[in-house]
Amino acid sequence: MSDFKQSTQQQTLSERDKKHLWHPLTQHKISPEMLAITKAKGAVLYGEDGREYIDGIASWYTCIYGHCNEYITTKVAEQMKTLDQVVFSGFTHGPAVELSEALMQILPKNQQKLFFNDNGSTATEIGIKMALQYHHNLGNDRKVMLAFEEGFHGDTFGAMSVSGLSVYNGAFEDHFIAVVRIPVPTGENNAEVIRKLKKLISDYKIAGFIYEPLVQGAAAMKMHDAEGLERILEICKENEIICVADEVMTGFGKTGKYFASDYLETKPDIICMSKALTAGLLPMGLTSCTQKIYDAFYSDDIGKGLFHGHTYSANPLACAAALAGVHLLLSEEIQADIKRITNSHRDFHDKIKNHPKVTNTRQLGVIYAFDLNVEMERYGNIRNKLFKHFMDSGIFLRPLGNTIYILPPFITTDKELEKIYSSIEAALEKF
Amino acid sequence: MSDFKQSTQQQTLSERDKKHLWHPLTQHKISPEMLAITKAKGAVLYGEDGREYIDGIASWYTCIYGHCNEYITTKVAEQMKTLDQVVFSGFTHGPAVELSEALMQILPKNQQKLFFNDNGSTATEIGIKMALQYHHNLGNDRKVMLAFEEGFHGDTFGAMSVSGLSVYNGAFEDHFIAVVRIPVPTGENNAEVIRKLKKLISDYKIAGFIYEPLVQGAAAMKMHDAEGLERILEICKENEIICVADEVMTGFGKTGKYFASDYLETKPDIICMSKALTAGLLPMGLTSCTQKIYDAFYSDDIGKGLFHGHTYSANPLACAAALAGVHLLLSEEIQADIKRITNSHRDFHDKIKNHPKVTNTRQLGVIYAFDLNVEMERYGNIRNKLFKHFMDSGIFLRPLGNTIYILPPFITTDKELEKIYSSIEAALEKF
Repeated sequence: MSDFKQSTQQQTLSERDKKHLWHPLTQHKISPEMLAITKAKGAVLYGEDGREYIDGIASWYTCIYGHCNEYITTKVAEQMKTLDQVVFSGFTHGPAVELSEALMQILPKNQQKLFFNDNGSTATEIGIKMALQYHHNLGNDRKVMLAFEEGFHGDTFGAMSVSGLSVYNGAFEDHFIAVVRIPVPTGENNAEVIRKLKKLISDYKIAGFIYEPLVQGAAAMKMHDAEGLERILEICKENEIICVADEVMTGFGKTGKYFASDYLETKPDIICMSKALTAGLLPMGLTSCTQKIYDAFYSDDIGKGLFHGHTYSANPLACAAALAGVHLLLSEEIQADIKRITNSHRDFHDKIKNHPKVTNTRQLGVIYAFDLNVEMERYGNIRNKLFKHFMDSGIFLRPLGNTIYILPPFITTDKELEKIYSSIEAALEKF
Repeated sequence: MSDFKQSTQQQTLSERDKKHLWHPLTQHKISPEMLAITKAKGAVLYGEDGREYIDGIASWYTCIYGHCNEYITTKVAEQMKTLDQVVFSGFTHGPAVELSEALMQILPKNQQKLFFNDNGSTATEIGIKMALQYHHNLGNDRKVMLAFEEGFHGDTFGAMSVSGLSVYNGAFEDHFIAVVRIPVPTGENNAEVIRKLKKLISDYKIAGFIYEPLVQGAAAMKMHDAEGLERILEICKENEIICVADEVMTGFGKTGKYFASDYLETKPDIICMSKALTAGLLPMGLTSCTQKIYDAFYSDDIGKGLFHGHTYSANPLACAAALAGVHLLLSEEIQADIKRITNSHRDFHDKIKNHPKVTNTRQLGVIYAFDLNVEMERYGNIRNKLFKHFMDSGIFLRPLGNTIYILPPFITTDKELEKIYSSIEAALEKF
């Protein structure tokens, strides 16, 4: 035993990692090296290699108030001393109740009920189940979901089914739920999208429409036309198709408003939340809905209830983190930070927009993206080369194909932003 | 705003809960009241009503070392100050590496690789995906899953599909993956189960078998025959059917061994973990597998990887809690506690086994269950009446139909156990 301990202590974490860990979304034969992160504070990740990396994507859009934010960790530490966990069927607790009241201050006004779960995949699975069972409970024969062509909604079977990005899902496609798709509205194609939508509505019995409003994250921060989406939502509503907004990526201020749905007149029936919900501290998902949806499940017939439940639903620690997060989001400081970064990105955009290698620039709030206009063949795996370039210059960005995007924590300093921008400018010269 | 605050402060948490919270597995019209829990310590839950309740089911089999266990919360509080969260694709960290090494000390020796996720449903979804894609990657045309008739594996679409307990899944059944089923082996029916299994193997192209080993939790702590399960697993292995043990409920010492699979000679290819994994503090799931499974995904072909990932995979806080939990599980004190409670249950069993209202008694480790032998019609909803009886006597038990079961935290004191037993004995006289 002591031999074992000694031998493992001589190895780096990256070396020890290889023995027993299978990482998500990773082909280990092609990508064998995992960099160990030993510490994180504010917008900075500290590597086992002794180097610092600015977290330019807020650790997958989660830690928007900065890593190890003391206001949040203090609240969670207090909660741990009082109530860690209790079954949320038949019981409730303060952190869940207070969080529900706080979220009502920032959610679109038509949202009334909250159903807790554990991550983005379960948040969308519950959204899908609510849409399907809503019609089932009302006696409507509607079993098909509508989704965007390049949407991403998670990795469990239901969530995979509605995701359009299914390059690597070959082993599972025979098991998917029935889904029909429309392209995202680009402005130019709006009339065509609406034509296609109306055709699908007449051909299929559509229960619900699941969509990432305005920004499709996994599709490389692809942004679409608000007016076009508005028209799609209007037509869905006219046809009693339940609108399920997947705001897992877009929620909690990143777009410049609390939710991307705030940019639209037509509000969703259901909203899926996760990621920044718990401020990057620990996992939780939430699915909110209107009174109309809830009422379709409220019955003397027990079978009309939503018989879905995860053991740690409404975990008090996660609720405490989320509540502290909402408090920060509502603060003048964070609102000023969001504006500061939004403006900073705009200035950076003005600086690079005419560069010959910069194309398809797009921004919404603190999300800024563009495509690198290079001959892809020349570079082999340009994505991996870009990733390495950024890491070499102390910046954690995660390019998707030839798309470079930034989604920094709101508390990222101007100096840190400058470092990110400089590293991108250097990439423009290098590739 | 201050008016709003004042008015909410005059209401109890239970009252405020009703406004915006939709609880899991709950028909709110039939069950409108949620009891607020304000504090938990050791084996005791403290209600807003000023009363104390002994947590006789360890908050759904999670907080086995007691609520707000200081050893664990201290480790998590330390972790929160250092590293809260980082993307687990391309990165790793100390808590994940150390947890992987610690789990290797308690998992069956054939388990070699760990894939992180967020809850029991995702742990089984990944188990199913590993089984299906294992055969897909090897070019085998096998797309059907095998499961027990009354198994429960979670509430996402893939997990729902393999669950046999689908009373309330009517709205979703058209979307389920292909599953064939066998009854659990009872000892008497073993030959028949094996005959049925062999027939299914010849009729269907079965990729994997998912099962709760020895104890089916949601099926009311139904226990089955170890020899019968052993034979099923042997036959599955002979036929290259991937064996996926769902140890979400049974894992981490509750059965008297680290895992229920430890009672069997034939080890699973894949093990799904959650619940007590993180000691009742916060959510996490884990899916472990053998080197053989991992190797089928390890390839120069990126598409042969497992493209599944949750944002908070391997969350450092959850890993820190789980690591502290494994340390406690390995301690002499906790091992002695498990034996103490196991023996205590056995004595209680001896005391009540001949009571005319006690039938189908069953025990494995700290899990003790029996069925109440009463005319169900006489009592209407006996489950709700039993639940109320226990709560009235300060005990949180969650009867399933006419099944009463206990699964207390390992640190439950003898005095607390006596209170649970007395309350059950009172129920035997009352109903």
